[in-house]
Order: sequence, then structure tokens, then C-alpha cells
Amino acid sequence: MQLPPGVSSADFSAAIHQIEGAVGKDWVFTSDGDVDLYRDAYTPFWHEEDEKIPSAAVAPATVEEVQMVVKIANNYKIPLWPVSTGKNLGYGGTSPALSGTVILDLKRMNRVLEVSDTNHYALVEPGVSYFDLYRYIQENKLKVWIDPPDPGWGSLVGNTLERGGGRTPMHEHFATQCGMEVVLANGQLLRTGMGALPGSKTWQQYKYGFGPYVDGIFSQSNLGVVTKMGVWLMPEPEAYRACMVMVPKHDDLVPLVDTLAYLRNSQIVQGICSLGSPLLFYRASQGGGILDAPGDPSIAEMERIGREKGLAYWSTDLRFYGPAKVIDAQWEHAKERFSSIPGVRFQETASYTFPLTPDQQAKVNVLPEIGIPSMSIFGILNRTGHGHIGFSPIIPMTGEAVFEAWKVFGQAYVDLGVKPPEQVFAFPTTYFARCFVFLFLFTVTQDVETNRRTRAVFKGLVRVAAEHGWGDYRTHVAFMSDVMNVYSYNNHALLRLHETIKDALDPNGILSPGKSGIWPKSMRKAST
Amino acid sequence: MQLPPGVSSADFSAAIHQIEGAVGKDWVFTSDGDVDLYRDAYTPFWHEEDEKIPSAAVAPATVEEVQMVVKIANNYKIPLWPVSTGKNLGYGGTSPALSGTVILDLKRMNRVLEVSDTNHYALVEPGVSYFDLYRYIQENKLKVWIDPPDPGWGSLVGNTLERGGGRTPMHEHFATQCGMEVVLANGQLLRTGMGALPGSKTWQQYKYGFGPYVDGIFSQSNLGVVTKMGVWLMPEPEAYRACMVMVPKHDDLVPLVDTLAYLRNSQIVQGICSLGSPLLFYRASQGGGILDAPGDPSIAEMERIGREKGLAYWSTDLRFYGPAKVIDAQWEHAKERFSSIPGVRFQETASYTFPLTPDQQAKVNVLPEIGIPSMSIFGILNRTGHGHIGFSPIIPMTGEAVFEAWKVFGQAYVDLGVKPPEQVFAFPTTYFARCFVFLFLFTVTQDVETNRRTRAVFKGLVRVAAEHGWGDYRTHVAFMSDVMNVYSYNNHALLRLHETIKDALDPNGILSPGKSGIWPKSMRKAST
Repeated sequence: MQLPPGVSSADFSAAIHQIEGAVGKDWVFTSDGDVDLYRDAYTPFWHEEDEKIPSAAVAPATVEEVQMVVKIANNYKIPLWPVSTGKNLGYGGTSPALSGTVILDLKRMNRVLEVSDTNHYALVEPGVSYFDLYRYIQENKLKVWIDPPDPGWGSLVGNTLERGGGRTPMHEHFATQCGMEVVLANGQLLRTGMGALPGSKTWQQYKYGFGPYVDGIFSQSNLGVVTKMGVWLMPEPEAYRACMVMVPKHDDLVPLVDTLAYLRNSQIVQGICSLGSPLLFYRASQGGGILDAPGDPSIAEMERIGREKGLAYWSTDLRFYGPAKVIDAQWEHAKERFSSIPGVRFQETASYTFPLTPDQQAKVNVLPEIGIPSMSIFGILNRTGHGHIGFSPIIPMTGEAVFEAWKVFGQAYVDLGVKPPEQVFAFPTTYFARCFVFLFLFTVTQDVETNRRTRAVFKGLVRVAAEHGWGDYRTHVAFMSDVMNVYSYNNHALLRLHETIKDALDPNGILSPGKSGIWPKSMRKAST
Repeated sequence: MQLPPGVSSADFSAAIHQIEGAVGKDWVFTSDGDVDLYRDAYTPFWHEEDEKIPSAAVAPATVEEVQMVVKIANNYKIPLWPVSTGKNLGYGGTSPALSGTVILDLKRMNRVLEVSDTNHYALVEPGVSYFDLYRYIQENKLKVWIDPPDPGWGSLVGNTLERGGGRTPMHEHFATQCGMEVVLANGQLLRTGMGALPGSKTWQQYKYGFGPYVDGIFSQSNLGVVTKMGVWLMPEPEAYRACMVMVPKHDDLVPLVDTLAYLRNSQIVQGICSLGSPLLFYRASQGGGILDAPGDPSIAEMERIGREKGLAYWSTDLRFYGPAKVIDAQWEHAKERFSSIPGVRFQETASYTFPLTPDQQAKVNVLPEIGIPSMSIFGILNRTGHGHIGFSPIIPMTGEAVFEAWKVFGQAYVDLGVKPPEQVFAFPTTYFARCFVFLFLFTVTQDVETNRRTRAVFKGLVRVAAEHGWGDYRTHVAFMSDVMNVYSYNNHALLRLHETIKDALDPNGILSPGKSGIWPKSMRKAST
């Protein structure tokens, strides 16, 4: 067993014994076989000493048990790494940033406490997965939609706190969060927003409460253990339509994206949009890459190929949700706007009216787009090999920025020797309201040399992106300090703010040391 | 001059002298005549010793000057009360929570640093008013709308930090905030979100950055001085339509509000909505009240009067923004939904296509509804007398909650001896996404006895509201501790979190002592 740094074997045993008293022996895991299940299945450190390995795991069933575990850990200065359901594949799974950390597994706290289909919200515990909540809603015949990410096995609380995204109009998950219950490092319990008012009637309906609005400091953070969370849902819409807009020329990307930004920021298009390129996919199928690389055919040559093969240079999908007549009018307006681009073509790719019959539902390609959790994304991800880590920079929602990003990342890939097939996800999407986010996936394997190269590529891309003013929205636990390190304005003033708050709320540094590159005072020097 | 508590006259003079050196003598105000301008014009303590009076005011012109002032104040432990333009009428204006506090007036920092009408955002300094930004946009012929509150003379930064609201689809102001620059109590400068990445290209386009999302802790707070802020704007829409829905019976309010919640949470209706009652306005015009009171005619009797006079029991307005065809479809759908209520009637009250001609604009009744700042609200507010303070509880968006609130507040008004005419604003609106907010206005006068009674009423209402699970979203500086006091879950755990963070970031307690009921450690005992 890997003990936490600075904790004696005797103290660790005493703490585990007390924790067993608090949650029951059955729910404290210390055997290698059990603890191995909490290692990162997609670790980029396979067979390497740098892999961070937990010492144990504990799975409390109630808020009171969480409070007891946290108090015991705080007494013995034993680090805890809370996970909700602990999926988070590509970003570290359940693995901590520091070997010896005890995983605080909240999956047994899986109650759906309330769902309203008149005011359209849910109150859930951390162990509630998107599947769980979906099932609850179906069983109770409630007319609300959830917004599952791909895949849907994860936790609403976990994904929201990591600030993930989905595909429906509620795609920006942190923006849909409303009210929290939190256990602090000293074991104290608090409620945020209107939840701080005993007997509150609007905990899930008004976010901010009175005074400083603190919910955000518990996201991507190590300041507390979130034990309940409110989330806004969407009324079941009457209909859904997915459409595709295709433009023929390289430079058409600029007006394409400008129009997209206008439509999104006007709330005329509500679901997420992904850019694509039938022409570059064709190039990739011929052994080339999606990102720019030396020796690529010229733009004129590519446009000629596009004309010959009837392939658009760029495409974007648009998703509409609502009454069929409203969707008709929105799509009409979108087409009018895009029609300023010569040669633009339009296509409707899917159209549903709700509720779907089981037969209709079985034919839906991407279920999360209509609020249904699914695991089918792994049918695509498997193409990339054993496992993956995600590099996720945010760039402006402009065609110019996309061109620059492809050029920069393409060159970085060349410099770093990454093969074109790894570029399959190299198109930005709109998981967040007003920007593009890339989600580059890198294969991780069980081969030490390959993983070393991949990690170097990853760190290189973080650096190159930062030089161009682009930062990641989220990262794998192995790279959190690297990413936080580029958010360095005024000598890392924001990190110092985080550290000041960390020291004040968690002086013993027991909650998730190293999360988001934030280390407790005692480990700060050793962290880089 | 009223010195800050615990600061000697010599120290205060030395500090003022240094501050004069930092910002120039012309921008430090210490004479009674000058300082009086920073008192609350609507104070509920007129002629009373309890009125909180500043010692001085200082108006820096740059971030560097703000940093110098804060450092000097921190050295001498002199409290500062930052204000942006310092309007905030009804909530305390520029007045502090502690006599002797120096007002840090940021109105000279009034640069519009950037406006994008392709990605629809602005980056502004605290002194930029809604009028300033509107003028900038007009002069530069940019196709974006701002969302001014009534009235428009205030600061975007100030209103957003106080979490105010407007009337267009961007009505929830804190939700439109994206990225900040903040001076901490130690004079350190930081940038939040993507602004923490030097040379960031998406500071105003992605809110959260990496790691804990901290922006919220600088709202309704005393943890930092915000010196720059990003705000999301809305693309100029093609058209606007305002409509009215009227229902005949008392109990129709329940389905009316349910349908409203469905339409709002589906993004089919985008601007704010206000409930109203032609019938209760009629009762009020006959000397009765809007809120329920003993001796009121029965519901059946009221409904009979409604039938006789053709007055609806309840109404709500709906506002649509976007392409005319989309609005047509949205309004059609809304009417279909409301048609389940027997006897419902519909009316279109305004319809515009943009840009308006100056003639058309001159005829618009409520300019903020179409993104144009105005001062005409004072034409209504003057009806209530000398000045006002606002009591602003949040309640659920259900008809049942509105009935309960009217009953409870009506009884409270009776118990407290408040006259019906003061109920003119007793209808909830949707300044925030998923709840109703009331904005009861109470007249303040220059008569000590009247103001004493008003303050007692106010405190009584805060208490009564809390007993029913309703809390204020914002309050006058005189009542901040009263309001924070009812957000007391688990022995005031949230307040203790605020205090812990306050002590860590501002150990000398120099920034806005008492703001939102949060006092520095040294004053905590004395605060209640």
C-alpha cells in the first residue's frame, strides 16, 4: 500500500479504523485488488512510477458519513480525493494527483431527491448518473429533459463540477447548476444560494442567494465535497430538427462562423454545433491529415477537388428544439442568413416529434442530442485505440481563429511527430455559450515509450496554445499543474488567490491536493 | 469629519496625504460639502445619528491608482467603499455600511475598452454607464444591444456586481458577466477566467477559465475592487413584439404561471414578464389594495366585477425578440398553450422592426425593453414620494406561491399598518431566469418617525418572508445584516464561509466592512 506522504503507518491504520467505524467495514477498501479499481484505466503512466496510486477508498452513504470521514481525515491529515461516480475518462478517472490519497467515492449517495416538471429542475446527490436521472424521469412520466454528455454513465454532480458539456440547449452544464450542499474540510456542512435560507422554497430556482455567490469556487476545485446539487432541466420540447450547412470555399469559413455566432448569440439556434469538413475528411481518408501540414495540396487544388467530388470545404450542423412551427421559422431564418455565402447548400439530417415511439428511438443516431443518455460514443472512441486523454483548448468563435488554430496545432503535430489519423476529433464545437472548444484526443497505450512521447506532445500543445492566447477548459489530472501554470497573469495572481482561499478553508490540505494545480501549503514547493 | 473607527486623526491625515500624492489633490474629497454628495439621497435615517456617513472620497483614474490607494488604505487600516458610478438608488446609493469609510469612487475609470459586434461582448471599466456604452455603440454603428436596467444612468459593472436585472433577453445581468480584473485588499491585481492567461483571446468569450471559477465571490461582496469586466451583449434583433395575456378567474393564475414557466424555460419567450391584474388595479383605484386584506370583496364578488367591467383577474406580458417570422411562430405557440384556460384573451401591445427611426423611437413607452437606456422610470417612481427603499424577495414561479406571498405580505402590511397605495409595485416579475422576484418599494421621507416605522416594516417583512422560505436577492445597505441573518442554515455556515474567505483575503478588513452583512474580524462582535 502507498501511504500518503508524511502519514505514519500507525496513524493511517488508526484513521482507517475510525473511518470503518463511521461508514462500516464493507465500505472501506484497502486491498490492492480493490484499490486498483480506482486507478486511471486510461493512465498515460502505465507501468511507470509516476502513476499516482490511491492508498484506499471509502464509500459513505450519507452526508453525515461524509462529514465524519472528512473530520477523521482532517484529524490525521490524510488526503481525500472525492469522486462522484468517478468516470471522467480521458481526464484521470478516479485517480488522484498525489499517490497515497484516499478516494472518497460518493457513488452510494445516489438519490434523486426531487424533480419538478413544472419548474424544470432536479435536486440530486453525487452518485446519481445521467442514466439514473433519466430512468427516474421516465418512470415518473415527467415531461422534462436532461442534458447527458457522451457517454451517459457519469454523474450529474461530477460532470457539472468539472464544467462539462452536452448537446441540447442546456449544453453548458455549469450554467445549469443551481444551489449546492457542501461539506468543508473541517467537516462543516453548508448550503449555497437560496439553500442557505432554512426551509427555502427556491433553492433550485434562483442561483445566487444573497451576498457573495460562491458556487463556482467548488467547481474544478479542492475546497469542499459537494453532497447535493440542483440542476436546471428543460421542458420536453415538441420537436427536434438537425440540419447541415455546407459551403464550398476555404475562405467561406469566416462568414459561416460569423453567421453561426449571430444565430447562437440570438438564441435562434440552441443545441451545440460542430464544424466539419467533408473535403478534409476526404483528404484524411487518402492518408493526409485534417490539420494543415507541409506538402498539403494548395487551397485552390483542394477547392478543385471539392468541386469535382461534390464535397463542401466546410460544414456546420445546427440543432433546433421547440414547437415545430418555431423550428420551421428559425431554420428558414438561418438559411436566409447563410445564403449570403455563394454556393451554400442545406440539408436536413434528422427530424423528430416527441415523445418518440421505441421504434423511432432505436433509429436515432446520437441519443444525447435528444436528451437520452447513451454509451454509443465508445463505438467511435474505440477507433483511437486503448485509451485516450483529451486536450481541450478554448478559441474564439471566428473563422480566423479556427484557421490559426489549425495552422498552429498542425505545425505542432508535425514538430512533435504526431500522425494524421490522430486528428479525427480536430474540429471545434460549441459546448460552451460563446466560444469554440477543441477536443483533441490522444491515444494512451501500455507502452512506456509511446506514452512518454504523448505526454511530451501534450505539454508542448499546452505551451503552444498558451503562446497564442488559448487555454484549456479542463485537463487530465496528470497535467493540471502544467495547465494552471499557463494561467499566469501578473505572476500567477489567480493561482495565489486560489492558494490563499485553499489555506484558509483547508489548512491541513486534505481535500484533493493538486487538483487544478492547487496544492496545500505544505506541498506547494514540491509541486512543480 | 467622521473618522473611521480606531483610526487616529494623525494617521487619517497621513493616509489622505499619501492618497493625494497617488491620485492628485483634485480627486480627494474631504470637505463636508463634497462628502455630503456621497451620502444616500434616499437614506431611511434622515436626521438620525444612525445614518452612515463617509469620511472622505477618492476618485482614481487608473488601475494603478486604485492599487496605490488600496495599499495606502491597507497600511493605515482605513476602510474603503468602492462604488462604480454609485447610483444604486433604493439600496444605499454611494453610502457605506460603516461611518468613517472612505468612498472609492471609480467613475473616472470610464473607458469602453472593446465592443465586438461579431462575438457580441464588451469590456468596460466600472465608470462606464449604460448610457455611455449605448452611445459608444451608436457612434460606432455596431449591431449589438445592451440590457439597461431602469434607470440607465448606473454602471454596468456596478449593476452586474449587485446582480441587477433588465428587460431584454439578457435580463439576468450576472449571467451575462464574462471575465473580470480585480484589485485585492493587498493591492494585488488579478484577472479571472481566461484573463488569467496572458494575451488571452477569449477573456470575454468563455467565463470559467481553468480551476475554481471565482467571479461570483466578487459580486455583492467586499473581497476585491473590480476594475474591468466583460459583459455579453445581444446581436441587434430584427424585430420585437410585446403581447399581453389576460385570464378572467382568480384560480386561472395557476395555469397562467405554469404556462409562463414552460415558455420561459423553453426559451420561447425571452424578455422579462411581469404579472399584473387589471381587476386588482381597479380595486386599488377604488381605495383598496392590491395585496389581500381583511374586508376585501370575496373572490366570487371580484370575478363578478371583472365580468361586469370587462377586467381580467390576471395578466402577464410576454416579450419576443428576433426574426419577425420566428416571433410570429413563438406567439402563435404561446397562444395555443394559454388557450387551455377558458376565457383567455390576447393582445399585442407593441411591435417594432429595427433599426427604428427617431420618430418611431420617440413613441416607445419603455425604452429599456428594446435595449435603450432611459431615465423615464423616475416619472413613475416619483409617485411614491421623496425616495424609496426596495424589498425584493424571491419566490417560486408558481401561481400557488404568488397567492401565498400576496396573502402573507398583505397580512404583514395590515399588521404593520402600511397603506394600500404603497402596493403599486406588488407584482412579481422575472428579472431572473427561473423564479419570480417582487420589488416592493417603501417611501422614505425626511420625517424621523415615518422612517422608523418604515424600517420596522422592512425588518418585519424580511423576517416574515424568511419564515415562508423566501429570501431577498439584494437589499439596502442599512438592512444587509438583517437579510444575511436569515440565510442561517446550519448556524450561519455560509456566512462563516464568507468570513473565513474575508479574513484570508483582507485581514485588515479595509474593503467595504459590513457589505452584505460581512464584517471584518475586528468588527464582527459589534456588528449586530
